[in-house]
This record gives sequence, structure tokens and C-alpha cells, in this order.
Amino acid sequence: MNIIEIIKKKRDGKTLSKTEIEFIIHGYLNNKITDYQMSSFLMAVYFKGLNGEETFHLTDVMLKSGKTVDLSFLKIPKVDKHSTGGVGDKTSLILAPQVASCGIAVPMISGRSLAHTGGTLDKLESIPYFNVNLSIKKYIKALSDIGVAMIGQTTELAPADKKIYSLRDVTATVDNISLITASIMSKKLAEGAEAIVFDVKIGCGANLPQVDLSVKLAKTLISTSKKFGKKAVAVLTDMNEPLGYKIGNWLEVEECLEVMSGKIIDDLCTVNNTLAGAMIYLSGKVKNIDAGIKIAEEKISEGSTLKKFREIVSYQGGDLEYLDDWKNYKRTKKKKIIKSEKNGYISEMNALLIGSASVELGCGRKTKEDKIVPLAGIILNKKCGNLIRKNEKLCELYTDNTESLKSAEILMSEAIKISAKKPKQRKLILDILY
Amino acid sequence: MNIIEIIKKKRDGKTLSKTEIEFIIHGYLNNKITDYQMSSFLMAVYFKGLNGEETFHLTDVMLKSGKTVDLSFLKIPKVDKHSTGGVGDKTSLILAPQVASCGIAVPMISGRSLAHTGGTLDKLESIPYFNVNLSIKKYIKALSDIGVAMIGQTTELAPADKKIYSLRDVTATVDNISLITASIMSKKLAEGAEAIVFDVKIGCGANLPQVDLSVKLAKTLISTSKKFGKKAVAVLTDMNEPLGYKIGNWLEVEECLEVMSGKIIDDLCTVNNTLAGAMIYLSGKVKNIDAGIKIAEEKISEGSTLKKFREIVSYQGGDLEYLDDWKNYKRTKKKKIIKSEKNGYISEMNALLIGSASVELGCGRKTKEDKIVPLAGIILNKKCGNLIRKNEKLCELYTDNTESLKSAEILMSEAIKISAKKPKQRKLILDILY
Repeated sequence: MNIIEIIKKKRDGKTLSKTEIEFIIHGYLNNKITDYQMSSFLMAVYFKGLNGEETFHLTDVMLKSGKTVDLSFLKIPKVDKHSTGGVGDKTSLILAPQVASCGIAVPMISGRSLAHTGGTLDKLESIPYFNVNLSIKKYIKALSDIGVAMIGQTTELAPADKKIYSLRDVTATVDNISLITASIMSKKLAEGAEAIVFDVKIGCGANLPQVDLSVKLAKTLISTSKKFGKKAVAVLTDMNEPLGYKIGNWLEVEECLEVMSGKIIDDLCTVNNTLAGAMIYLSGKVKNIDAGIKIAEEKISEGSTLKKFREIVSYQGGDLEYLDDWKNYKRTKKKKIIKSEKNGYISEMNALLIGSASVELGCGRKTKEDKIVPLAGIILNKKCGNLIRKNEKLCELYTDNTESLKSAEILMSEAIKISAKKPKQRKLILDILY
Repeated sequence: MNIIEIIKKKRDGKTLSKTEIEFIIHGYLNNKITDYQMSSFLMAVYFKGLNGEETFHLTDVMLKSGKTVDLSFLKIPKVDKHSTGGVGDKTSLILAPQVASCGIAVPMISGRSLAHTGGTLDKLESIPYFNVNLSIKKYIKALSDIGVAMIGQTTELAPADKKIYSLRDVTATVDNISLITASIMSKKLAEGAEAIVFDVKIGCGANLPQVDLSVKLAKTLISTSKKFGKKAVAVLTDMNEPLGYKIGNWLEVEECLEVMSGKIIDDLCTVNNTLAGAMIYLSGKVKNIDAGIKIAEEKISEGSTLKKFREIVSYQGGDLEYLDDWKNYKRTKKKKIIKSEKNGYISEMNALLIGSASVELGCGRKTKEDKIVPLAGIILNKKCGNLIRKNEKLCELYTDNTESLKSAEILMSEAIKISAKKPKQRKLILDILY
């Protein structure tokens, strides 16, 4: 087999065989196929796509490029959630302990902040000493001991994905349905879950902003899951404005602690509990998602979610004292309050621009070398549809760096729009696909 | 500027500015942009193309990446020819001396065999000691001394093209109009010609087999030439069957010597003299191509073409004795005669398959490391439209290697079709564009 011929075949829109897909992925992992041939192949895939069979084979080859975790010794259901990424999207921190407290194992492997969107690992690491780098052995032990583990991708699981993902990131070949599916699924299938709930974000702040592509991604994720014998549900949720009021790593942990302590934050709780409800439904414990949502709400109100979250933090080495001290509202030294210049209704809170502002402030990375500022971020004082008066506070920006405060402020002034007319309320849960 | 954003811009079908094109080409030459980013960019260009302005800028940046030869001291017209590549396409060897013998300088920089098509340099090097690697200084001296030079691409001229071409070759991004144009033109503009005749091959044996793309390429080559203030003509010629009867490096030199000695080989002479006529026309010496063709024919019949060819060989260090001994018909040790299995007319001589067979025999390279066998090749005994009887000789195969004789034989049996009905004659000169 010849790599140039395979690139040409895909470039010309033909279907690749299982053997050809194996050849390219194994060759790339063994350094027999170069980065430049892989990136040209990925760009050809970007334009010509992969069909269902090809996506299945690619996922399978990437999955089998590393170890797969066998959790069959755990005699309880094992359900995970995956989000395609958003701004202020902090639900993993709530629903992992929430679902685990129902007696369902949550084997969760998450990622870091990407472009303008946040990452679960960076949020967890804003809790001092929290260790997301567990070995597979320790990961299995955590699941066995407390029914939940929240870790990052190890080199042992789906190494092909790790290598290919780094290349896609720097060659403008990220946003393709088949490549996204194979990347997500190869990791999710390796981690040992029996069922997966996908939170597919739709709107300007999503990593894949086109609605039709997001719907296609949701369907591809479900069909690929089923091909591998996994149960799956996809919840399509709005990502035009950030989820909740707080954006930034520690700020989001803080907002999760507020919710886990009983505070109702409308959009965040709705999305979170729907996802948790879907996970409980997939576990087989209830007959439908609504029944699952009911249990999810109880798990918060009775305090077991917060209890389980503290258990996770403690088990993975996090500083419980620092966590429990959250009501002291730890902030960075530099702060900027942005006020409204007129009376009116908030008609837009552009999640893409607010996410980008949060990166400027230090919540994400512009280059691989950039350091995260754990306390940096944005606190919104209003959300879309809210009434605001002239000179009333719109939001607060936090960072360690005066320079970045300025560029974030410019982005925020573009992100927030105020109009005289009350805007139509957006649906939060756009669809649920099985 | 950010290379990922530029790749994305082209991927999304947007037009790049001159500055962005400079950024990517300079960055690549300075190793600030990686091979894998360049190849992903090239694949995006493959799908989305470059418009006229972008192609002009790309050509210009690639041209200016190296030296340009100034031949203005030569007070005679300077005209070159470029072929998009074919099988048995040996016209450069005839028309360079033919046109030079008219008092027109021919500054010719050629390439090596590529895929199934032959290369002028490999043909010239089948003459022992012929040196195609002249420095720019020696190249200028040759033009000044004998009015013609036939050399290979040096590292001094258009180095960006050299680097990008090697990458395109191994990433399936060769056959794109804009990239081909910029590659050809950056070299042709650097070599010092004032006018260029393009031989754009059309048919199964062309490097770009689609007719519509070939026509588009011809038009793009002409319009880009004009943007750089060069006169240009494109001759669209048939490449469904090989040109002439001999394919292989020394075999083609031999056939050229036959023609230069007065033998009329219909298709070869027609294409060759049309191209030579167009070159003479572009020099301003005559009012139209037909008048140019007349002069070209005279230059052969009066013997001045052969005389000038011997002058080139001698000037560039080639073994004249070896050359003059051509009527001894030097051949490889291994030989295979293929005979017809039935009576009929030759209805197809597939140039792509015959070219591939010639590569098997050692006329070209399958990997960069492969060595050329100078005497290897194919001699056709018949051409399309000819009558053949059962057991009559179809062709002869020559090589040093028994193995390759077998695979070449299989290709040849697929390449040659015999039918009961006389096939329609194909036009050789399909169009001439100005």
C-alpha cells in the first residue's frame, strides 16, 4: 500500500477500506507516515468526509492503538458524559458527583481548554493539588473505591488520537464531523463506560458553530456509539450565551459549589440536570429522562452531590480546606467593572467573544506554553433578556495582567448588546436525540 | 499573521492577500512554517484553488525567492518552450537546437522524469558525460557562446518552487492548476526568456488527464505570462498515444537523431515543428506560426539542427563519439519482442500504460533512490490506425532486469488494443491559444 495513493483516493472522494485506514493510522503512529502526509490526508478528509463505515473503522483503529479499560468487575452501571465544549460550560463538575451519588459509576476522561472554550481539567486544577493525571490503575481503583474518577487523557489510552489531535490543532483540520467523532469516541470507548450522554453545543460559542453540522455530529456520535454496542443519548443545548454567570477556572468551580449547595441558576441547572437525568436514564435505573431529572434534583437538594464532589476532590489529592473556603470569594489582584452605557434589555451575550475575552484574561491558552491564571475570569451580572439601567454593573473582569484587562474589555463591549425591545427567549434544550 | 488562520481562510474559500502569500512562502523557506502546515495549506488550495491575482502573487513570491537571470546583454530574441509532460515527448531535444540555429537564444531549464512521463534531463544524461548541472554563470556563458543551454533547475533559481514541489509530490497535491502554473512560471521567469511556448498535453498519458483542466491550465499559463510582460503561446497537443516510436532515454535521443538527420516521423515532426514554429513566431522573425514552421522544417533539412545539437552536446561535455555512433543501435542485454495475437487495426496505444511500462523497464523512477537504465525502453513497431497481422511484431521491450520485463509486458498487453474496424484518426494539434 502507498500513502500517496491513499491520500489521492480520499482527495478524489472515494471510500477507504478498513485496511487502508489501518495502514495510515498505524503508519503514522510508527513514524512511517510523516506529519506532512498525515496533515494533507486530514485536509482531504476535511473536504471529502468519511462515511459511516469509514468513521467506524477510524474510531476502531484509534481505539485499538492503546489500552482499553475493562470495568466489567464493577457490578453497577457505568455512564459518562461528553460535551463538545462551550463557554461557562461547567456541568461535568456537578453531574459527575451527582450521578455517582445515585450508585452509577462515572468514568470520566476530560480535556483542557480549547480555543475560546473552557476545559474540565483546567477547572479541576484550580483546586490546589487536585491530580488529574492518574494512571489507568489508579483510575480503576478510584472507580472501585468511590464510583467516580475525573482524569485527563493518558498516553495509554488511544495514543493515535493524541498524536492526530495535536496535528489537527495546528493545521486547521479540527472541525470535521468524522474526525471529531473518531477523536471523541476512541477515548470514550477506551475509558470503560457502557453508555454515554453527549452534550452537543449549538450556537456562536460552540466549537462547531454551524447548526446543521452540530446536528449531524450528534447523529454520527449516536450511530457510532451504537455500532460499538454502547447506549447513547445526545442533548442539543444552546451555546449562544455562556452557561451560568461565571466564566474562568476557579470561578466556575465556585459557581458549581453554589449550585451543589442549593442555589438555583436557571440555565446552568436546566442543562446540568437534563444531562444528569439522561445519564440516570441510560443507566437503566428509571424509565425516562424526566424521571432521571427528578432524581438528579433530589441528589442536589439532599446534599449528596456536594458530599460526593468533596469525596472526589479529597480522593484525587485536592485541597479540601481551600475548596470549603469558597465563600470567601477568592479573586485576582486586578479587577475591572464594566457598566452599562444605557437603559435597556440585554439582547446578546456573545459566547464566542466572552470566551475569547476569558482567554485574554488567562483562563485559556493562546499557545501551548501559556500559563493558566486559576482565579482569572469573568462574572456576568446580567444575562440575556434581563433589564439593565444606565451605569448599572454589566460584568466584572479578573486577571493578573493590566494589558489583558484592556483587550478583554474591548471584546466584552462587542459581546454584550443592549436593545430597547425585550428579546425573544431562546430555548436552552433544543432537542434530545436517541 | 498566523499560519493556522491563513490555512483556514483558504480552506473556507476566501481570497488571500499578497502579504499573506508572502508570509506563507517566506515562512516555509525560513523553516518557520512546518512541512505539515504547508501540506495542509496545499491540500486546501487543491480544493479551493487560487484566483488570477493569487496565482500571480504566488508566482511572483516564488520567483523572487531566488536569483533571476538577466539575459538583456544578448541582443537576440530569447524564447523557451515548456511541456506539461508526456510519453515519448522528446521535442525539446530537437527544437532547442533547431530554434537556436535560427539566431534565437533558447534558455532552457528542464526537469526529470515524473511519474509515467519522461524528462529532458534524463534523456540528455543518457549521452555519457553530458552535464546538465551548469552554474548560472556557465549557463549564461553557454547562451552567449552558442545561443542555447539545456540545464536542470539549480538551487539558485526559484528555491521556493523546489522545496514546495518536493512536498507536493509526496502529499497528492500535484495536479492543481494554480500550483502547476506558479511552479512552471516561477522557473521560466527566472531563466531569462522573453517569450514562452507551452506544450499542454491532453489525453490519458498527460500528467493532467482531464481535458477541461488542461485547457484551463493553458489559459492560466498564458494570462500569468502576460501579467509578467512575457509573450506566450499554448499549443494543445494529443497525448493519448506516445509521441514517435521510441520511449526511453537513449532510445529517444536516437529517434531525435533520426529526425534531425532527415527522417520524417509523422506525429513527432508535426508536434515538434509546430512548437518550433510558434517559438520562431514569438521571436518576431516571422508574422505567423505557419511561416515559423516552414523555417523550422528548413533548419532540419539543411542539417543545421543536427549541427547545433552536436554543438550543445560538445559544449556541455557530452561524448560526441558515443552520440555519432547512434546508428549502431545500442541496446540493453535483456530484450522481449511482443507479437500480435490477431489481425486488425491498432485502435489504442495507451500512453499512460506504456509510460508506466517504461518506468518498470528502468526509464523512470518509482522512488527517489531508483537508478535510471539509460538504454532501457520500448520501441513501438506500429502506431494507432496501423494494420497488423497475427504474429507480426507489435513492440520491443529493453531492460537490464528480467523481473521488470514481465511486469512491463503485462502493462503493454493492456495498453495496446486491436480492433477489426479502422479507428478514427485523432487530431494531433488540438488548439493553439495566444
